Amino acid sequence: MSETTLRETALRLDSEDPLAKRRELFALDEAVYLDGNSLGALPAHVPDRMADVIAREWGRLRIRSWDESGWWTAPERIGDRIAPLVGAAPGQIVVGDSTSVNVFKAVVAAARLAGDDRDEILVDATTFPTDGYIAQSAARMTGRRLVPVAPHEVAAAAGPRTAAALVNHVDYRTGRLHDLPGITEALRAAGALAVWDLCHSAGALPVGLDAHGVDLAVGCTYKYLNGGPGAPAYLYVAERHQAAFDSPLPGWNSHADPFGMTPGYTAAEGALRGRVGTPDILSMLALESALDVWDGVSIEDVRAKSLALTDFFLRCVRAYVPEGAVESLTPEAHAERGSQVALRCDAAPAVMAELIARGVVGDLRRPDVLRFGFTPLYVGFADAERAARVLAEVVAEVLGGARDEASGGGRTV
Amino acid sequence: MSETTLRETALRLDSEDPLAKRRELFALDEAVYLDGNSLGALPAHVPDRMADVIAREWGRLRIRSWDESGWWTAPERIGDRIAPLVGAAPGQIVVGDSTSVNVFKAVVAAARLAGDDRDEILVDATTFPTDGYIAQSAARMTGRRLVPVAPHEVAAAAGPRTAAALVNHVDYRTGRLHDLPGITEALRAAGALAVWDLCHSAGALPVGLDAHGVDLAVGCTYKYLNGGPGAPAYLYVAERHQAAFDSPLPGWNSHADPFGMTPGYTAAEGALRGRVGTPDILSMLALESALDVWDGVSIEDVRAKSLALTDFFLRCVRAYVPEGAVESLTPEAHAERGSQVALRCDAAPAVMAELIARGVVGDLRRPDVLRFGFTPLYVGFADAERAARVLAEVVAEVLGGARDEASGGGRTV
Repeated sequence: MSETTLRETALRLDSEDPLAKRRELFALDEAVYLDGNSLGALPAHVPDRMADVIAREWGRLRIRSWDESGWWTAPERIGDRIAPLVGAAPGQIVVGDSTSVNVFKAVVAAARLAGDDRDEILVDATTFPTDGYIAQSAARMTGRRLVPVAPHEVAAAAGPRTAAALVNHVDYRTGRLHDLPGITEALRAAGALAVWDLCHSAGALPVGLDAHGVDLAVGCTYKYLNGGPGAPAYLYVAERHQAAFDSPLPGWNSHADPFGMTPGYTAAEGALRGRVGTPDILSMLALESALDVWDGVSIEDVRAKSLALTDFFLRCVRAYVPEGAVESLTPEAHAERGSQVALRCDAAPAVMAELIARGVVGDLRRPDVLRFGFTPLYVGFADAERAARVLAEVVAEVLGGARDEASGGGRTV
Repeated sequence: MSETTLRETALRLDSEDPLAKRRELFALDEAVYLDGNSLGALPAHVPDRMADVIAREWGRLRIRSWDESGWWTAPERIGDRIAPLVGAAPGQIVVGDSTSVNVFKAVVAAARLAGDDRDEILVDATTFPTDGYIAQSAARMTGRRLVPVAPHEVAAAAGPRTAAALVNHVDYRTGRLHDLPGITEALRAAGALAVWDLCHSAGALPVGLDAHGVDLAVGCTYKYLNGGPGAPAYLYVAERHQAAFDSPLPGWNSHADPFGMTPGYTAAEGALRGRVGTPDILSMLALESALDVWDGVSIEDVRAKSLALTDFFLRCVRAYVPEGAVESLTPEAHAERGSQVALRCDAAPAVMAELIARGVVGDLRRPDVLRFGFTPLYVGFADAERAARVLAEVVAEVLGGARDEASGGGRTV
């Protein structure tokens, strides 16, 4: 299909998009920002809110804000804001600490919930690395063996020795969506716990934590949830596990009576048990404010747009980019696709640098993967078309240049 | 001494105070803020800096800020800003996570450094509770026994089975300063590691981590360092221990090549090994900005003023408050005093509520302790005199009211 036709199609799709107006809620510029799967864009109202948090809540109310500005209860309050986006009833999510720290809490707690006779922990062999590193530490410190397994083999690998499996809902590199309902059910049938990492799915597609019987989950908030750089992560503890949830990080914020300041530890009831120390209030309240952009949004609409966007981007790439120059690592099947497109490309570092220079911002996963994240709240179809068009130009120049150089043409890439 | 004379003395001491001008760097009001040992006041320049971080670094540069705005290296860069305040050479402190999480890293790492034949961990029996809870978890997960010991008995208790001791430099409740050099030396002599919690000393007095041979230390940044509510904590790993430092939380930020994203973990060199996950950038950069108020300040001058302030406050309390109404829990001896005064008082909750209502902000430690923190960068001698004077008024009214009520006078307290 010609460029003209695809541009016209993009304009039509944008005009029909029920989420198109959400884009106005964000601080964006002329760039096509396809890196929201790494750092979500700034919601435009957050700066004013944070100015108030800093100048009034910290600067004037100071210590009183722990009560009067609701700082103390922010971790569970914000958890309840995230809950509907991941299909969780209230009271099961607390916000705080990094994803890595929450992976540690979740995997250790899962091992303890499973019991001492289950001495293996499965981990997604294709995981974002920190999950694997931390799961290894959790296994070491709970006397268990860590077994890396490809996500599609987790169900078959789970057995009577399996305590738990830690799996990514969407693969950070390829954008592949894993079968959360099926894997969770297989783990349950084997008597093991399912621990899901939602970093690349929450805010991009329905998760259904409660509906699918997930045991524990973690996720970050700075990607599709737009919470800001390094915004605190969250921990989901299904209600049925809360009474026996035994945290390896039982800090005073998870105590039943934190201001009693007793030397003995008594865990709080509920998801509060996942709290640890004093929460980083500035980052946390930026996240809380950022979540306003979700008011009135259906995650099913987000998913529909996400799939339409990645379909359309792949269609434009096929139309524009020379055959063989890039290869999609992202599954065609909707049931297996998250909200990003990953393209393998020989000259990926040079291509991504030039794309960014021309206002199409994706990112690179070494050595050869171009990642393009599609955030349905602020990316449109015209963005997708433009990104593919600029990619085609850049690929032609960079690969062409490389061929010239290889043949002695001397052109610098 | 009469009120008039003490007020005159206060004005003279303020006029002679070399740190008096620092107060102008903070956003303060007419209240006497004596709760900087819980939440430090806002440095006045921080709102503008954070507006830029949010609107430009997050909002416009977005993902590029990880490199271009120095986000990625913030934990070690800010650690090096804190280092001189606690007597550490560069390259030994990283900022990030809560104090509780850093206690876990430090105690587990200390146990591992000490070796498996040392099966006891000593913990300050008077510690701020979270240290005890977390040390218990660290002991459990490293197969050791946790032994609570009063700080002045740690030196005698350390023996061939002692792996490490976790001690508070200054007691959060009484303000007692513990003997860091002596206890550290005794632990060293016993072959055990010294892990210090600096939450209530850093920024208030010289710590001398390197000079005294401390092994590991943690601290928060939202008290005397004024980093903001829940600002990230820090971890000190003495250079001699860095090569063998074995973190229980080996997240991807502590990997030798984090963007290599390899499934196997290889620890970074140096204090970076104490990093875990993606740092909470907004809270972290507020802290970095807040540290500007220390430029050109000598921690010895801070200590001298701190002692003068607490001396003077105690003198005013003795002069103004009815005999027997309050009892100081804070040692008279300078060598045993931090930067707060703790007064035991029968009606402490009612007294503190009324003090705050009258613009003297301290805090309560249940059931009966009034805490007054003296932050030398922004608290002056006139503040101390006014706080004691208002305390005397409130104590007389509340205790007098209580006596009226007890005798049937019917007055509501």
